[in-house]
Amino acid sequence: MYDIGQKRVGKVLKTSRKYLNWVQNSVLEGNISRVNYEKLKAELNSIINPEVDSVIFYTFRTTKYSEREIIGIQKGGEEVIL
Amino acid sequence: MYDIGQKRVGKVLKTSRKYLNWVQNSVLEGNISRVNYEKLKAELNSIINPEVDSVIFYTFRTTKYSEREIIGIQKGGEEVIL
Repeated sequence: MYDIGQKRVGKVLKTSRKYLNWVQNSVLEGNISRVNYEKLKAELNSIINPEVDSVIFYTFRTTKYSEREIIGIQKGGEEVIL
Repeated sequence: MYDIGQKRVGKVLKTSRKYLNWVQNSVLEGNISRVNYEKLKAELNSIINPEVDSVIFYTFRTTKYSEREIIGIQKGGEEVIL
């Protein structure tokens, strides 16, 4: 999930969507290989302003011990075209 | 993490911080019991507008298989007073 200045937010979302699915305003999810994860981080590092922008990655080697629950509206998703 | 209308966002953050630590603009983390997790969801349900607002919960029974990485600035945190 990211918190990015207005100017760069579109580029961050576009880059992230090459690798992950968009699930909420500033949240993406998906299966990603170690190689692509490193590529994604490198690409985002070249876009963001590290003094004001922030991106958090949570990675799970298995989804066996994790759950995901949404309250309210489900935004994002595959069907949304930017 | 949440995506909440301006009017309700302060209340959502305040409520969430009773149970969790704030780590980024719209992201909180923490250890939470099943009981408190249900309480938090009930409280947030009474605040949000489910037609426009969205809250996603990721829960892990163990942190053994998960990792967390931040690029850019680390926002939030215990020391920040709203």
